[in-house]
Amino acid sequence: MTFIYAMEIFGVAVFAVSGALAAGRKSLDWLGVSVIAVVTALGGGTLRDLLLDNRPFFWIREPMSLYVILISTVATLIYVRYRKPPNNAILVADAFGLGLFTISGAQIAEHTVHSGIVIVLMGAITGAAGGMIRDVLLAEIPLVLRRSSLYATASIAGVIVYLLGVAIGWNHSVCALLGMAVIVLLRLASIYWGWTLPVFHLPHPDDDSQD
Amino acid sequence: MTFIYAMEIFGVAVFAVSGALAAGRKSLDWLGVSVIAVVTALGGGTLRDLLLDNRPFFWIREPMSLYVILISTVATLIYVRYRKPPNNAILVADAFGLGLFTISGAQIAEHTVHSGIVIVLMGAITGAAGGMIRDVLLAEIPLVLRRSSLYATASIAGVIVYLLGVAIGWNHSVCALLGMAVIVLLRLASIYWGWTLPVFHLPHPDDDSQD
Amino acid sequence: MTFIYAMEIFGVAVFAVSGALAAGRKSLDWLGVSVIAVVTALGGGTLRDLLLDNRPFFWIREPMSLYVILISTVATLIYVRYRKPPNNAILVADAFGLGLFTISGAQIAEHTVHSGIVIVLMGAITGAAGGMIRDVLLAEIPLVLRRSSLYATASIAGVIVYLLGVAIGWNHSVCALLGMAVIVLLRLASIYWGWTLPVFHLPHPDDDSQD
Repeated sequence: MTFIYAMEIFGVAVFAVSGALAAGRKSLDWLGVSVIAVVTALGGGTLRDLLLDNRPFFWIREPMSLYVILISTVATLIYVRYRKPPNNAILVADAFGLGLFTISGAQIAEHTVHSGIVIVLMGAITGAAGGMIRDVLLAEIPLVLRRSSLYATASIAGVIVYLLGVAIGWNHSVCALLGMAVIVLLRLASIYWGWTLPVFHLPHPDDDSQD
Repeated sequence: MTFIYAMEIFGVAVFAVSGALAAGRKSLDWLGVSVIAVVTALGGGTLRDLLLDNRPFFWIREPMSLYVILISTVATLIYVRYRKPPNNAILVADAFGLGLFTISGAQIAEHTVHSGIVIVLMGAITGAAGGMIRDVLLAEIPLVLRRSSLYATASIAGVIVYLLGVAIGWNHSVCALLGMAVIVLLRLASIYWGWTLPVFHLPHPDDDSQD
Repeated sequence: MTFIYAMEIFGVAVFAVSGALAAGRKSLDWLGVSVIAVVTALGGGTLRDLLLDNRPFFWIREPMSLYVILISTVATLIYVRYRKPPNNAILVADAFGLGLFTISGAQIAEHTVHSGIVIVLMGAITGAAGGMIRDVLLAEIPLVLRRSSLYATASIAGVIVYLLGVAIGWNHSVCALLGMAVIVLLRLASIYWGWTLPVFHLPHPDDDSQD
C-alpha cells in the first residue's frame, strides 16, 4: 500500500469514469457501460503485458482493480442523474492518468526489453490502447488516430524525455517525474490551445478506380 | 468421448450456425461467413485461455472443433437456400450453448484463479465474447452491450449461482447444472417477456462542446 | 542477413505502405497513419505468434521491423504529396508480400502443430490478419470478408498446395516456392479478371422480426 499503488488505483478509477462517460453517448445498457469502463481502464496495461508476456496480468493477480472500476462506474451512473459531469476536471484527471500509466508502462517494459523504440511503443500502448479498444467496441475510428488534441503523441514525447534523462545518467525517479510532467503539460496545452498533428489526406483519393 | 465432450461440440456447432446467420445479414462472401463462424464459436474460449495463459488453446490441441465449424457453416449456407432459418429453435439452442460455455469457462478459470469476480468475468467472457468479436468484425457495436434481451447478464447470474452453491458446500456437478439452468431460463425468459437492463443516457450529451 | 531476411523486410515495407495508403482515405493524422502502418505490417505475424505462443514476438526480438515501417510510412506521406501512388505496382508488391508472409507463417506453424487445418489457418492469418485489424481500426467490415478479389482464399490455396507437395515428398524449398507462386498468381489473376467468391445472402433477412 504505497504511494505508487495509490496512484495506480487513481489512474484506473479515472480511466473507468472517462470510459463510462464515453459509453453514455452511445445508449448502452448498464452492463455495456461496465464492460466499456473495464476495457478502458485495463485494456492498455493488459495489451502491454500480453505483448511482453508478463504473466499473470495485474488485474488477475490483484482483482482490487476490478472492484475499483465497478464502484467508479456505478458512482458515475448515479452522479450524472443529478448533475452534469465535471468535464474539465475529468480532462485534467485523465491527463494525469495518461502520464502515470505511460511512464509506469515504459518502466515495466524496461525489465524485459532494451530497444528504445519498443519501450516507447509499450509506454504509449499502456497509456492510450485502452481508449482505442473502447472506441473499437463503440464502432468508431479511435479518437487517438484522428485529428484531435495530442494524446498518444504526448505519451511518446514523455517516454522519450524519460529515456533521454536515464541515458544521461539522471536519477530514475527524477526522470520518471519529468516524463510524466511532459505528458500532462503537453496534453493539457494541446487541449487549451488546440494543438493537433497534421492530417494525411490522399491528394487523389478517387484515382483508385481510374487506374 | 464423454457426455461433456459431446456437449462442447454441440455448443461449438450452435455458435457457428448463429455466427453464420449473423454474417448473412451483411452480404459477406463464403470465406467471410466461415471466418465469422469460427470467431463466434471459438472467440470466447480463446480469449479466456489467452487471459488465463492456458496453453495450447483447445482448438489447436484438438482441431475437431474447426471441422465441426466448417461443416456447420456449409450446412447453414445450403439450408437457407431452400428454407428460412428456424430462428426460434436457434435461439433456444444458442441459450443452451451460452449456459454450457459459461459454466465450463468458469470451471476452467477455477483451476487457475481464486477470486470470485475474476471467475465470474471468465465465465461471461467464455459465453459472450465470441459474439462480441463477431460484432466488432461486422463493424457494429456488440449486441451484448446494447439494450436488448439479457445475454451476458444471464451468464453472470449463472456463475454467481454456481459459486454460491459451491461455497455452501453443494456437489460441484449439481451446482454446475443449476448455474446452467439459471442461464438458459433467464435468457429465454428475457427474450419471451422482453426483459432488458436500463439504458445509461448522458442527460447533457451536448455539454461537452460548451464547457 | 540472408535472402529470406531481406524478403521479410520487403514484405513488412510493402504492407506498411499499403496500410498507410488505406489510412489516407480516412483523414487520420500522422500518428494515426503510423499506427495503421504498424498494425497492417506486424498484425498478422503477431496474431499467429500469439495463438501459437511463440515468444518473444519477432518485432520485439528484432526491432528493425519497426524502423522499416516508420521509414516506409514517412516515405509514403512525402511521396503522395507530389505524385499519385503507383497503385498497380503496389497491388503487385502486396501480392508478393501476401505469398511470402503466408508461406513463412505456415512453415513457422509447422514447428509447433501437426494438424493440416491449423497450419492452413496460421498461414492465412499471417498473410491476411494484419489487413483485417487495420480495417477494424478504420471502423469498416474487413475487406477480406466481403465480396472482392481473392485474398485470404489465395493464401489458403497456396498453403494447401505447399502441404500437398510436402506430403508427396517433394523438397521443402520447392514446395514453398510453388505455394508462393500459387498465391501471387491467384491473387493477381483474381484482380485482373474480377474473380470473386459467391456472396451469402440470407433469403429472408427481415423474417427475424416476424417470428
